[in-house]
Amino acid sequence: MNQTKVVEEEPYNYYDYSDWYSNNMEPTRPPKEVILPCDPTADDQLFHICIASVSLVVVLILAVLKRRKTLCESFASGSTGISSPVNFLDQTQHKALAVTVFGLVFSKLSVLVLAPDPLPFSKDTPQEIKEYMKLIAIFYWPALYYPLLACGTLHSKLGYVLGSLFSWTHFAVLVWQKIDCPKTPELYKYYSLLASLPQIGCLGFLCIKYPILFLKGAKANGSEDLDSSYYTDYVKLILKKKKSNISTSIRSDKPKLLETVKDTVKSYIYTPQKVFRFPLKLAISAFVSCIAVYQVALLLVILVIPTLHIVRAGIDDKFPFLLESFGIVLSEDRMEVVQIVIHYTWCLEVCYLCGLTLACSLTLIMLMRSMILHRWNLQGLYRGDIYNVYNCQKSIRPSQTGLVCWMGFTGYQAAVISLGMVLQTLVFFICFVWLVFLIIIPILYGQNLILFQVAAKAWPVWVTLILTITLQHVTARFAFIKKDAGTRDLNNRGSLFLLTYLLFLINIVVGLIAAIWRIVITALYNIIHMGRMDISLLNRAAETYDPAYCYYTHYLKVEVSQSHPVMKAFCGLALQAASAGGAGQKMRDAEEGIQLVNQEKRQDKVVNSRRVRARWQLLYTLVNNPSLLGSRKHYQLQPSDSFVNGTNRSAAAGSKKDASSKDASSKPTAAEAGAATPAATDAAAAAN
Amino acid sequence: MNQTKVVEEEPYNYYDYSDWYSNNMEPTRPPKEVILPCDPTADDQLFHICIASVSLVVVLILAVLKRRKTLCESFASGSTGISSPVNFLDQTQHKALAVTVFGLVFSKLSVLVLAPDPLPFSKDTPQEIKEYMKLIAIFYWPALYYPLLACGTLHSKLGYVLGSLFSWTHFAVLVWQKIDCPKTPELYKYYSLLASLPQIGCLGFLCIKYPILFLKGAKANGSEDLDSSYYTDYVKLILKKKKSNISTSIRSDKPKLLETVKDTVKSYIYTPQKVFRFPLKLAISAFVSCIAVYQVALLLVILVIPTLHIVRAGIDDKFPFLLESFGIVLSEDRMEVVQIVIHYTWCLEVCYLCGLTLACSLTLIMLMRSMILHRWNLQGLYRGDIYNVYNCQKSIRPSQTGLVCWMGFTGYQAAVISLGMVLQTLVFFICFVWLVFLIIIPILYGQNLILFQVAAKAWPVWVTLILTITLQHVTARFAFIKKDAGTRDLNNRGSLFLLTYLLFLINIVVGLIAAIWRIVITALYNIIHMGRMDISLLNRAAETYDPAYCYYTHYLKVEVSQSHPVMKAFCGLALQAASAGGAGQKMRDAEEGIQLVNQEKRQDKVVNSRRVRARWQLLYTLVNNPSLLGSRKHYQLQPSDSFVNGTNRSAAAGSKKDASSKDASSKPTAAEAGAATPAATDAAAAAN
Repeated sequence: MNQTKVVEEEPYNYYDYSDWYSNNMEPTRPPKEVILPCDPTADDQLFHICIASVSLVVVLILAVLKRRKTLCESFASGSTGISSPVNFLDQTQHKALAVTVFGLVFSKLSVLVLAPDPLPFSKDTPQEIKEYMKLIAIFYWPALYYPLLACGTLHSKLGYVLGSLFSWTHFAVLVWQKIDCPKTPELYKYYSLLASLPQIGCLGFLCIKYPILFLKGAKANGSEDLDSSYYTDYVKLILKKKKSNISTSIRSDKPKLLETVKDTVKSYIYTPQKVFRFPLKLAISAFVSCIAVYQVALLLVILVIPTLHIVRAGIDDKFPFLLESFGIVLSEDRMEVVQIVIHYTWCLEVCYLCGLTLACSLTLIMLMRSMILHRWNLQGLYRGDIYNVYNCQKSIRPSQTGLVCWMGFTGYQAAVISLGMVLQTLVFFICFVWLVFLIIIPILYGQNLILFQVAAKAWPVWVTLILTITLQHVTARFAFIKKDAGTRDLNNRGSLFLLTYLLFLINIVVGLIAAIWRIVITALYNIIHMGRMDISLLNRAAETYDPAYCYYTHYLKVEVSQSHPVMKAFCGLALQAASAGGAGQKMRDAEEGIQLVNQEKRQDKVVNSRRVRARWQLLYTLVNNPSLLGSRKHYQLQPSDSFVNGTNRSAAAGSKKDASSKDASSKPTAAEAGAATPAATDAAAAAN
Repeated sequence: MNQTKVVEEEPYNYYDYSDWYSNNMEPTRPPKEVILPCDPTADDQLFHICIASVSLVVVLILAVLKRRKTLCESFASGSTGISSPVNFLDQTQHKALAVTVFGLVFSKLSVLVLAPDPLPFSKDTPQEIKEYMKLIAIFYWPALYYPLLACGTLHSKLGYVLGSLFSWTHFAVLVWQKIDCPKTPELYKYYSLLASLPQIGCLGFLCIKYPILFLKGAKANGSEDLDSSYYTDYVKLILKKKKSNISTSIRSDKPKLLETVKDTVKSYIYTPQKVFRFPLKLAISAFVSCIAVYQVALLLVILVIPTLHIVRAGIDDKFPFLLESFGIVLSEDRMEVVQIVIHYTWCLEVCYLCGLTLACSLTLIMLMRSMILHRWNLQGLYRGDIYNVYNCQKSIRPSQTGLVCWMGFTGYQAAVISLGMVLQTLVFFICFVWLVFLIIIPILYGQNLILFQVAAKAWPVWVTLILTITLQHVTARFAFIKKDAGTRDLNNRGSLFLLTYLLFLINIVVGLIAAIWRIVITALYNIIHMGRMDISLLNRAAETYDPAYCYYTHYLKVEVSQSHPVMKAFCGLALQAASAGGAGQKMRDAEEGIQLVNQEKRQDKVVNSRRVRARWQLLYTLVNNPSLLGSRKHYQLQPSDSFVNGTNRSAAAGSKKDASSKDASSKPTAAEAGAATPAATDAAAAAN
């Protein structure tokens, strides 16, 4: 009844919003820029049909080429025959190519998430099949870009020419499309352009890299992994490492505050070490992580900032009524209210951007720190320090789970870092909003000082707490601890117990503050370190329940067992010796580096000393890396039985055997196997 | 204009809530029970003035009594003279008394938080000074209950009589007050009664314990800490421990699933060990924690459940209109809407109680687990396994921080467990609400199956993910791992690399699920373990940033350095020998257990073998616990200089020295000091 009266009495009702919902007001709002869907001159559908079929043909050509090359190589001497269009993840290959192509594929995925047409073959994909299309696209794009990777792995001039052509085509079409249609109707007009920048960058790099490889041609072919000086340099560094260790231990005896701070800062800045090279998988992960940071930051900006701008533009003199209807009166003057609200939305925007920037920089710092820890872990595991890395003893050899984790590692890392950044941005945004609206704005404008009023009102609590804590510290120092003959003991036990009892209740209040601090520090620490896979977010006893850390440990086991630099150095030495000798028979035993040294002429003293060193290096490697035993050709015993007693013997025996012993030793084994098998089957039958 | 029309046309407006706000509807609501403030017959103010002054007098009497006793004891032989009214936290005293009084004080604090009059001296405390009153009360209550503790520590019949009288008075007055006024107007009518139940329990225990102590009189006096067989039993157990260790290592060689599960369950159930006794501080913490669980659970129930009941009683046929005004239409029939809403509030209540029960039981299980870990840590530190407990090397000796943490430990533990339980209840409540409203109710009623619809719609994603993961596992097992001569190596590297590349993008999706799981598991783990101080919630490298764990480690250092059972066993043996010998001179050297054995007659072979064993035990203890060296009377050198080389020598020398050697050895030291000091001051002056 009241309402009706008001309407009848007054010609204009402040609470009547009916004209808010009519379309009369529309023209006063700023005209929204309408971006029409744009069809680039280079039609996506046609281009993809062409390039996909050409790619297929090229892959087939490469496969044939590889088979021919392998046939030729069986007659050649120096090559190991591992170049093939699929061996791109081997250390042997051009690292930069693999890193760039993985980055390219990941950039494509980021664009894919919000694209209207996940697959280029269908235009204006209906909403209901869009998700299925995305699933197919997840497999299509890596396949499409595969030739870019495969062309580089064959080390042939034809491969480089094809690679150049492919990268030029992809690059040209993409740039052409982006120049044709820089604006798209989704989210923010330039989002599509900005999101494809890493893609353009990767393709551009490939456009330059392939021609350079083509020009260098012969030299590139010679830069085989095992021939490079990296592994021998690594072994040399190990052998003369003792000096630097001592200097570190001397420095750590007397740590000063300044040095501690310096060391902490240093431990977060990645500085390349002269003789250390990351495994390819880790290099790819780092690059993909950087692209992930860019893409997530871009998406977070695009999703929020334009919306905030639209909201701010929409705040007009009607807005105060809306606030009043919720009972919020910011000021008597309505224009001032509008100004205040606009100012607040501007503050929100600043908070959001600050939060995002902080999240980005923290993620990048954490990525650097991760790289340092990866290096530390790898070097530790190469040395055999398994306990220090894993906090428990584990066997370093490839397992089923390990291999699955190895395959997925780059993907997991990208996912973890993306989700971590989203979470960080959210949390930091909330923190900044609290900081600005509860502390900074109240201080600047001198109003709404709620937090300060509460804190000021509770001053007796603070004073009591500080006094109690001080009292405990002072009495502990001067009354209760007795320094006697260089050791410390308790003194005045009676007073200590009395104080403990009397301060029991106030210590509960202190404990409450500590508990709140515990919650805050735990949450903050875990949110900051969310994107890192190299540390577990859980307690030391429960580390393996953290899935990301679990993946990392498994990955590391496979990586270390396969890319041990000392092992590779021996393989390199062996191959060099083999190519010097040049006989076909020797080639088959190329992996046993020691044998080859044996077959050389023994007149030279240098050779002799090299042989002794090689033997010791082999022994050292095998003792520290029992998993390598299985890779040795002449190794026949079960390592668990013979390792402890048999290492010396097998190493010595291995160095004395001739190349011909392989055939000799394989015969009795076959004969024994023949004799053993019927007995084994009988036993099995009896057991059943 | 539309609204006005509706009002004019219809006689009853569904959106006119004016009569909601009038008082016409009041009589239809259930009449609220009005509880008037109640004044108990036993006036609190008067009682407290009396009992506080009597307490003061009694404490003074006890202090005088103790001084007289000490004078007497200087002529007696067997006693160590550590009984005093303030030595209640020593292992010597009656454990149960100290535990109960601490529990009593804590219970009082819980009642205090919400009481209208924190101090009994002022009635109807004004709101503005209430907080200050609470601060004073925090110091008043421990002081008031202090005589209850002090009476038990003197081991005199007078003390027990006074203790009985005090506990009876407190108990009688409290019970009388609660019978007079069982209902109070705050929060929930029986809250005050329920909250004081632990207090009544503690006082009741003291009422029985003191008379029993009085009756046992002489025997209680004889149960001195060092005389008890506990410490010698502990040493005996250490000396024959090897057997059990071997059996454990054999068992752990082949762990089966059932045994693993059994072991896990066992590791959470506290079973007392025959020869292990908790330090008094830990026993108090455990008891206080149990009371904290009760009080927090009570408070959480009282704060929410009665409110929910009132809300449910207030839901009548007007409620659907309120919902409709927010655009929520649960059903066409209004009575059905009321039924549904009442049912939902009932569900909420059940969820809340389930969450609370889960939080309580988890906290109690964690408390049990904590006790097991406390025991494990203490035994480890007694053995000298510092690295296993702290994950780094630390010196076990009392420090300033350590002592402050020791004083506050019980309070911190209570605070951490209380806050942890509140957090757990909140989180579990939210989880249960999700479970009930998103899964159970939709399944039961077959509607609002939003979650299932979303999951069903996304089936291609699930199928693809499962297929991909399976594919990776199967190929890893059968294609990529080559088992050769007992070790494993990679096989088909080309295919492995190709699969890695093609599944790169889908592995990002797998990683996203893992990352979400990481967030969930980290949050859950930390929330469940929030109440435990014995584990850090942070990563292994950042453990010390967790304040609660930091307190615990410091506390443990002080506790272990003061209550090492082997040290106590030696002290006990020494005292026994001294009382057998009976000379006043020997008493002064009582702490050097070895000397006393030396001074006995050497004709007995049993004595001889005991001496050898005692020497070895001393040596063993000193090697494992260098911090004990400072407690030895004849120890004069700096431990850091002489420990490594000097242990054997000093231990052997210590056992050979006579009682008179103390004076002889101190003279040259003084002479040397006299000679050295001028030189040292010269050097210092030159340096400046």
